[in-house]
Amino acid sequence: MFGKCLENVRANVPLVHNITNYVTVNDVANVILASGGSPIMSDEPEDVEDITSICGGLNINIGTLNKRTINGMFRAGRKASELNHPILLDPVGAGASALRTETAVQLMKEVNFTVIRGNISEIKTLVLGAGTTKGVDADVADAVTEANLDEAVAFVKSFAKVTNCIIAVTGAIDLVSDSEKCYVIRNGRPEMGKITGTGCQLSGMMTGYIVANPDNKLEAAAASVVVMGLAGEIGWSRMQEGDGNSTYRNRIIDVVYNMDAETLEKGAKYEIK
Amino acid sequence: MFGKCLENVRANVPLVHNITNYVTVNDVANVILASGGSPIMSDEPEDVEDITSICGGLNINIGTLNKRTINGMFRAGRKASELNHPILLDPVGAGASALRTETAVQLMKEVNFTVIRGNISEIKTLVLGAGTTKGVDADVADAVTEANLDEAVAFVKSFAKVTNCIIAVTGAIDLVSDSEKCYVIRNGRPEMGKITGTGCQLSGMMTGYIVANPDNKLEAAAASVVVMGLAGEIGWSRMQEGDGNSTYRNRIIDVVYNMDAETLEKGAKYEIK
Amino acid sequence: MFGKCLENVRANVPLVHNITNYVTVNDVANVILASGGSPIMSDEPEDVEDITSICGGLNINIGTLNKRTINGMFRAGRKASELNHPILLDPVGAGASALRTETAVQLMKEVNFTVIRGNISEIKTLVLGAGTTKGVDADVADAVTEANLDEAVAFVKSFAKVTNCIIAVTGAIDLVSDSEKCYVIRNGRPEMGKITGTGCQLSGMMTGYIVANPDNKLEAAAASVVVMGLAGEIGWSRMQEGDGNSTYRNRIIDVVYNMDAETLEKGAKYEIK
Repeated sequence: MFGKCLENVRANVPLVHNITNYVTVNDVANVILASGGSPIMSDEPEDVEDITSICGGLNINIGTLNKRTINGMFRAGRKASELNHPILLDPVGAGASALRTETAVQLMKEVNFTVIRGNISEIKTLVLGAGTTKGVDADVADAVTEANLDEAVAFVKSFAKVTNCIIAVTGAIDLVSDSEKCYVIRNGRPEMGKITGTGCQLSGMMTGYIVANPDNKLEAAAASVVVMGLAGEIGWSRMQEGDGNSTYRNRIIDVVYNMDAETLEKGAKYEIK
Repeated sequence: MFGKCLENVRANVPLVHNITNYVTVNDVANVILASGGSPIMSDEPEDVEDITSICGGLNINIGTLNKRTINGMFRAGRKASELNHPILLDPVGAGASALRTETAVQLMKEVNFTVIRGNISEIKTLVLGAGTTKGVDADVADAVTEANLDEAVAFVKSFAKVTNCIIAVTGAIDLVSDSEKCYVIRNGRPEMGKITGTGCQLSGMMTGYIVANPDNKLEAAAASVVVMGLAGEIGWSRMQEGDGNSTYRNRIIDVVYNMDAETLEKGAKYEIK
Repeated sequence: MFGKCLENVRANVPLVHNITNYVTVNDVANVILASGGSPIMSDEPEDVEDITSICGGLNINIGTLNKRTINGMFRAGRKASELNHPILLDPVGAGASALRTETAVQLMKEVNFTVIRGNISEIKTLVLGAGTTKGVDADVADAVTEANLDEAVAFVKSFAKVTNCIIAVTGAIDLVSDSEKCYVIRNGRPEMGKITGTGCQLSGMMTGYIVANPDNKLEAAAASVVVMGLAGEIGWSRMQEGDGNSTYRNRIIDVVYNMDAETLEKGAKYEIK
């Protein structure tokens, strides 16, 4: 299934409109290309509706948001909603500032997101910000671990249900759920945290995966998480004496570029809960 | 001739003012440095006139334009025109949105461009947008191929004449013309399309080549196209098992860094029509 | 001492708020991660106060300043001043435009900088712009050399005294002074100038070093200069046939990632004047 998702990306070359931060944008573009998609970046309010209309999906990442680009996010998001395009929200830094939290929460109200991908703290912030009970959140420790896994799965399923989105929480253990099913994924390496933007890269790639797999969105989202984690593992195995996080960044994108269905299927480490 | 153009860049260290997109800007800066030039980036309307005044040339790339930076493009462009600096337009995404098309067309009216470099679809958009007959455009298929080469050459020469600019259309076959002569260049590799921004990089480097070769602008523009294409070929030959588009990006810039006149002359694959 | 500074960064994981240019921002983030810190980027005026409040220090780099981000610089700078956070100013291009010079000078008036890091021309511009006598400046040649070293040291000490900041002037010879002591550092390689942003990277890393070493700010600043220079030396020693500035960029960050106290102490080339 994951292999088929990958092949659909390579066959369909999904065009992904990205409104994303200027820190990791180049890597986002290159990883989308590596995966088989095609990236376009545009954040000017007067430009985004035209651009999103010619794309297959929209990736909104609030990493270096400003008032102008926030306006662009809303205009692009509403247009993409009208067009029934898959739309991803990456709420970078939600919880770290009022503006980020409020922007993410308001976007969730006005835009018809298909998937929200973030770390557990960002997702918890959205749950609180969205006005659901604090209890759901308070029961989930900040990191998803084997010890609190069942709680975390229940939390993610619950938020997926409330929002009617696929929720992807990434970290040492990744959870991807549509409220019914939850993929629990154990690919990846801790050293990926020493590279800026592996999460942003995943969001861009995930958008392309969903665009190219409209009938299997949950599986497509999970497949992209496995691709990224597996790329981290294979990329790490290719590291040589003296290599560090900059070379690791290149190697991960290189592995995504060379990934095939068989490698993906064999390397995937997951269960469904 | 191409070798001499390269050596003039290394000898003169042209200072290039870039108003360019935030997706590929780092690679643009590094490839200008690799080629022997020196990059400066500035897009604030209140800053650009001072900056462009101390530079030798201006590279305007509309890849992630916004209303503020558009204003910067016009102010920088008018100032550089006054100073008779070489000015390049890279109309990224012209045709993909009204704002991009209108901005590019309006810039062509108010700024004295020396060269316009884009892919065939972008250039076709400018031809239509500029109000020339649709016939010229309709006769040119989207991709320049051996089959439609003569038509494409005629199209490029015609647009060069109308605009009084050097026109550089890059793709599988690259065309660089000043209306009289057209360089038909067959360097490069298709895998370059899997890296974001090789076109943007070329625009930055081309600006430096033209600044450093004021008496041979056409040859200088063509030389930079050959440098980029040849770097793609040599860089690809250095790829190892498991390498992908991220490493390829680095290798291409590395080859530009190490390029010398002899390698350039020997590797150039072109004819003049 | 330098080794201890490095270890404190790795132990304390300083969170650094960066308002920096979009050209080199990705490398700044990755080098901060490589050194053991944690970067956050935010430049929106409505966002920066919240973000800087959760950080340990602030890095202000005016490389691609615009009116909105200038406003962000002031708001973040005043907030960080209130919180007594270490704050670094990197006056990129001061002297190249009125806006840059005025912004840097005004920031120095309103923000309580801990350290100012730039090249000699930028620092000279600040001295003039700040209204100190031209004589101090006129006596210092643009490049710090062995021939004018004593004058340069006196100049840097004097400016450190006037501003009550640590002044770090980087170039072929680096000077880091708090008015009493001046570290004269001879690490580094000239080829580092062929990579965009090694100065920006140093500013980001230096901010983290100072945050993690509050009782030894001068030594911490000097240590980060040595780390960067030594990374340039070791990275260069790892270059292979055909490598160029793009690979060199990766290698330098990789070396910072792998740097340990012993390597740092052994490789440091400095004297105190």
